Amino acid sequence: MKKIHVTELIIEKKRTAGLTWEKIAADIGMSEVFTTSACLGMNAFPRDKADLLVRNLGLPQEAALVLAEFPTKIFSQAVPTDPCVYRLYEIVAVYGDTIKELINEKFGNGIMSAIDFDMEIDRIPSPKGDRVELKMRGKYLAYNAW
Amino acid sequence: MKKIHVTELIIEKKRTAGLTWEKIAADIGMSEVFTTSACLGMNAFPRDKADLLVRNLGLPQEAALVLAEFPTKIFSQAVPTDPCVYRLYEIVAVYGDTIKELINEKFGNGIMSAIDFDMEIDRIPSPKGDRVELKMRGKYLAYNAW
Amino acid sequence: MKKIHVTELIIEKKRTAGLTWEKIAADIGMSEVFTTSACLGMNAFPRDKADLLVRNLGLPQEAALVLAEFPTKIFSQAVPTDPCVYRLYEIVAVYGDTIKELINEKFGNGIMSAIDFDMEIDRIPSPKGDRVELKMRGKYLAYNAW
Amino acid sequence: MKKIHVTELIIEKKRTAGLTWEKIAADIGMSEVFTTSACLGMNAFPRDKADLLVRNLGLPQEAALVLAEFPTKIFSQAVPTDPCVYRLYEIVAVYGDTIKELINEKFGNGIMSAIDFDMEIDRIPSPKGDRVELKMRGKYLAYNAW
Amino acid sequence: MKKIHVTELIIEKKRTAGLTWEKIAADIGMSEVFTTSACLGMNAFPRDKADLLVRNLGLPQEAALVLAEFPTKIFSQAVPTDPCVYRLYEIVAVYGDTIKELINEKFGNGIMSAIDFDMEIDRIPSPKGDRVELKMRGKYLAYNAW
Amino acid sequence: MKKIHVTELIIEKKRTAGLTWEKIAADIGMSEVFTTSACLGMNAFPRDKADLLVRNLGLPQEAALVLAEFPTKIFSQAVPTDPCVYRLYEIVAVYGDTIKELINEKFGNGIMSAIDFDMEIDRIPSPKGDRVELKMRGKYLAYNAW
Amino acid sequence: MKKIHVTELIIEKKRTAGLTWEKIAADIGMSEVFTTSACLGMNAFPRDKADLLVRNLGLPQEAALVLAEFPTKIFSQAVPTDPCVYRLYEIVAVYGDTIKELINEKFGNGIMSAIDFDMEIDRIPSPKGDRVELKMRGKYLAYNAW
Amino acid sequence: MKKIHVTELIIEKKRTAGLTWEKIAADIGMSEVFTTSACLGMNAFPRDKADLLVRNLGLPQEAALVLAEFPTKIFSQAVPTDPCVYRLYEIVAVYGDTIKELINEKFGNGIMSAIDFDMEIDRIPSPKGDRVELKMRGKYLAYNAW
Amino acid sequence: MKKIHVTELIIEKKRTAGLTWEKIAADIGMSEVFTTSACLGMNAFPRDKADLLVRNLGLPQEAALVLAEFPTKIFSQAVPTDPCVYRLYEIVAVYGDTIKELINEKFGNGIMSAIDFDMEIDRIPSPKGDRVELKMRGKYLAYNAW
Amino acid sequence: MKKIHVTELIIEKKRTAGLTWEKIAADIGMSEVFTTSACLGMNAFPRDKADLLVRNLGLPQEAALVLAEFPTKIFSQAVPTDPCVYRLYEIVAVYGDTIKELINEKFGNGIMSAIDFDMEIDRIPSPKGDRVELKMRGKYLAYNAW
Repeated sequence: MKKIHVTELIIEKKRTAGLTWEKIAADIGMSEVFTTSACLGMNAFPRDKADLLVRNLGLPQEAALVLAEFPTKIFSQAVPTDPCVYRLYEIVAVYGDTIKELINEKFGNGIMSAIDFDMEIDRIPSPKGDRVELKMRGKYLAYNAW
Repeated sequence: MKKIHVTELIIEKKRTAGLTWEKIAADIGMSEVFTTSACLGMNAFPRDKADLLVRNLGLPQEAALVLAEFPTKIFSQAVPTDPCVYRLYEIVAVYGDTIKELINEKFGNGIMSAIDFDMEIDRIPSPKGDRVELKMRGKYLAYNAW
Repeated sequence: MKKIHVTELIIEKKRTAGLTWEKIAADIGMSEVFTTSACLGMNAFPRDKADLLVRNLGLPQEAALVLAEFPTKIFSQAVPTDPCVYRLYEIVAVYGDTIKELINEKFGNGIMSAIDFDMEIDRIPSPKGDRVELKMRGKYLAYNAW
Repeated sequence: MKKIHVTELIIEKKRTAGLTWEKIAADIGMSEVFTTSACLGMNAFPRDKADLLVRNLGLPQEAALVLAEFPTKIFSQAVPTDPCVYRLYEIVAVYGDTIKELINEKFGNGIMSAIDFDMEIDRIPSPKGDRVELKMRGKYLAYNAW
Repeated sequence: MKKIHVTELIIEKKRTAGLTWEKIAADIGMSEVFTTSACLGMNAFPRDKADLLVRNLGLPQEAALVLAEFPTKIFSQAVPTDPCVYRLYEIVAVYGDTIKELINEKFGNGIMSAIDFDMEIDRIPSPKGDRVELKMRGKYLAYNAW
Repeated sequence: MKKIHVTELIIEKKRTAGLTWEKIAADIGMSEVFTTSACLGMNAFPRDKADLLVRNLGLPQEAALVLAEFPTKIFSQAVPTDPCVYRLYEIVAVYGDTIKELINEKFGNGIMSAIDFDMEIDRIPSPKGDRVELKMRGKYLAYNAW
Repeated sequence: MKKIHVTELIIEKKRTAGLTWEKIAADIGMSEVFTTSACLGMNAFPRDKADLLVRNLGLPQEAALVLAEFPTKIFSQAVPTDPCVYRLYEIVAVYGDTIKELINEKFGNGIMSAIDFDMEIDRIPSPKGDRVELKMRGKYLAYNAW
Repeated sequence: MKKIHVTELIIEKKRTAGLTWEKIAADIGMSEVFTTSACLGMNAFPRDKADLLVRNLGLPQEAALVLAEFPTKIFSQAVPTDPCVYRLYEIVAVYGDTIKELINEKFGNGIMSAIDFDMEIDRIPSPKGDRVELKMRGKYLAYNAW
Repeated sequence: MKKIHVTELIIEKKRTAGLTWEKIAADIGMSEVFTTSACLGMNAFPRDKADLLVRNLGLPQEAALVLAEFPTKIFSQAVPTDPCVYRLYEIVAVYGDTIKELINEKFGNGIMSAIDFDMEIDRIPSPKGDRVELKMRGKYLAYNAW
Repeated sequence: MKKIHVTELIIEKKRTAGLTWEKIAADIGMSEVFTTSACLGMNAFPRDKADLLVRNLGLPQEAALVLAEFPTKIFSQAVPTDPCVYRLYEIVAVYGDTIKELINEKFGNGIMSAIDFDMEIDRIPSPKGDRVELKMRGKYLAYNAW
């Protein structure tokens, strides 16, 4: 059993039981973004959360072991094609240098970590059409000089 | 005079006058992110803001025309190499499908616009090391069915 | 059951029953282009249309669920190879900057949406040889300044 | 003098004289799309139109020769990056197989020519936001069997 | 049954029955090049030729339907690797601009069609070593100006 | 002085003197295709032909040396973009395996040489529209077994 | 049965019977390099050698037919990754222009054939560490001028 | 002064003085292949050889310093395009696995070094057409196990 | 049985028996890095170590043969995507020229071998957060001049 | 003045003054690796070190400002070509998964930072040939779960 198989079991259970990511996450006491990403195989659940999830969804016990394993993150397309994901790629390309300039200005010579990192997604109501809000937070890491 | 030349003039003025993006933006009453991106040639200033910026920085008047022109956004590397920008690319690759799942769950079949879009960058103090926060907001766009 | 499987079922039924996309679309009261693209897995049917289609073609009921799901749009070749599709790619490459110039001139700094979008294909009789006409319409989206 | 140099002269004249593509095209009695594309170096003007354009814009006479020469159409990026052009690329990728299916259904085994081809761009008013309309027409070409 | 399966059936039958492409083509009254390419899945046979071929080779009747369907022409390598095919690619790369110059000189601004097209391959005896002759003929298509 | 500079001199002289490739080739007693390709820097003229060409066109004597030098054939795009050249690439991709099959059938295990090679281009009149004919001939080379 | 399957049979037999390429080649009276390459599917055995090999190794008779068929040489990685093969690629990249200069100097405008070609590999004892020697020989092919 | 400039000086001197690589190499007492490759910037001359070469060709003294510097070997095309170099690339691709098999069989688990390496090129007369012979020798390097 | 199958057997045994790479390596008296890499199929075990490993883990005897075979090292992504591996790639890209400068300064014109090579990984305690230490050692190889 | 210009000034000064990286680094009290990388434009010097370096080498004062600026790290080749750098790339490709396994085993789910990072290079004498030793140390960063 590999992560891809557990992901398929979860997707199937979610569809047939009419679940949402919001509920799956709430039931194990973790965030929506982290829970979804770990169910999709891009993060590792803490062992107790994996056990709880497996129990909640009625998955085979082996799945908990797999969900707690460290994933190898492979993404096969340099440029993503799904429009929803491509737009994020485009934002990084258009605003990447801007973000770098402002991190350097506000913090110094360094970067925002993608490892010590968290994110949330919200719906912001607006009369001109609701907006998607992504809030990303990563630890500032300074370059070393030695 | 092209956008690249105006960018170089601004960078030089900023360095010699010891300015910050924060101050340049505040002086024309626009956000840091938008101001920086438009100074780097990736967005077009409204004409009056371009005039004001040119006056504030003592640039030649032609620069205002150029800053208000619609840019052609070319990014030459499918995978960005600077570590600060690469980390953003990696976040999109790792969390892209997660974001899509959650936008679909919260809004329906659609995407977050990268055009009707805004962003801000903040420094979040933390005892374990300050964090960079990126807040992105884009209009939700639903796929059409006809 | 995944979208690819439903597509294969539809293609097979269409061949053995001697159907056309035109008729399949008319029978559910949607356009040819949208119907074909959703049958090929590149769009999601509204649930009621999916039910109707499944009933009309005698597909298993689960297929309706799948046809109404949000697709992940993957296209595996940066440059398409089939001559019919390549010509469209070539048109975009040759006329892309022209289209951008004219959208900017007629609307301002923005783009034509590929999400809030529709298209139709017609046969235009002509004594020198009939012509294919593609009519694409997408909502104008203006860039944000903030 | 090469096509790129004539393009730069035209762009400069257009900016300083406050011209539009619409007017430049009308003054030589050709369409906006063709005129813009030929000014950008992606098509060849008929010789008399090139002469007229050069006279109207006050360009050096040699420019007319260059504008009437057959261009070598080079596009350097397999995947275009400017958002306005990328959306067109995405449309081709998402709807390419659909267009092929419907051309085959309406015409037979063949393609829409990108050579014996014309296009127009219009603004379609709409209460929910104006729409961009692209109308492309190309001669149907049937595959040969021998 | 897909085109790839019919191709495999034909190759197997050809090997076991000791047939040649020349004979297979002659028996249905079509050219060697077209017959071979359609057997390899890169062209569609007219329906009556497909029926005849299927009868001649003793293939299942469904194969005739498939052979008459419009193929989707996918070629997976931008640069072909087999030496025999690579040499053709190299000829196009080395002589491509030359061919364009001479088509423009002899015909005007346009191209040789790859759709309304035919080809033949012959063996030309020569004392210094026999030569392969490829004769390609495609309809001249003139660019449109509008 | 490099091959690219001589090519530019020839193109300029050809344009101002109203010459054709046909006449330039006839005046040195070589074929159109070879002459054009060598003028474009993709082949080396025999020394006496280079001298003659330089005399005919009134080029500096050093140009003859350069035209007789062995070129380094660089082509920078794996997939050519100009439509006229792309169609040739497409023909190779679509018919490559067919050509290989038929060379193998008519000659044995080997290839058509792209070095010991010649080509000609002709205009074939036809009531349905004139056709471009490319005739390529290359020596058959058999694979060695040892 | 395809070439890949015969290759697997040979590899297995070689391993279980403790054979070497040297012995397999000697037993059919051909060279090590050619024999190995044809067993790996990159060359075609003469029919009598294929029969002999099949008899020697106790393979099914159909394998002889397959070993004598003309291979389609596909190599899937533009840059080889195995260190042993990469070093050869690097040698070509570093010394390619040097080899071209010296072939041109010693022979004239032409190339070394990769078709009418043979190679051998030897172990050269040396006190500072034995050396691998590759000896490649290909027919000189002169470019045609016509 | 960089290596590229010294290369250009040498090429020019070689052409105007009617020199050959053979003679340039003999005059400094080094091999043709090494001398040519170092003149083309792909190897570093020992300092005394660089001095001698510079004196022989009448180059500026600074050139000797540059010729003795360690080169950075950049090759810009994953797949070489010049036919003479491409054939070598093809040989590596077709025979790479064969060479690896035979090195492993004759030496053990290791490779032929491309650093402790030498090569020579010879003309082998033959009644069927002279042959190019490349002799490459590299130290065998065994993989470490620890 | 191929190396990939043996790797899967080892991974499974390691997981179910709660083993570590550290222990697996210690039990056969080899280093952690080498043992792990050979278990993952990227190196060949000496035959006696392979036998011992197979006995320790209770694998089928055939696995020892496979573990001692010379691997073909294929890596399918030019740019690795897993963040842990990408960071190493980034280090090579950022510090590659620096390492080359310092090897040249300390040793002369040459490289660090990746074949006669060993490595170890250690955990270095630190109050500001423990550090990963990679120690790589490869034989210096000098370029040959001949 | 950009980083590339300062790098060229330093390289020139180093060559004419016969300096080494070792001495340049010692004179400002920083490590060889960091000093070299920052001189090559891949790191930013602390301001006081930049001042000292500029004084030591007699560079223009503006150079100190530039050396202290945050670099944009662009590396243009996905696969490095210089053999010395390629070997490092190969090591990452061959041992990348091994390193990840062992970091995970020794630390948990996380990575070695390439930002909070240092490295040194040493010459290790050995009777069988001296060895290059690279010692890399980066802070362990654990993935966040939230």
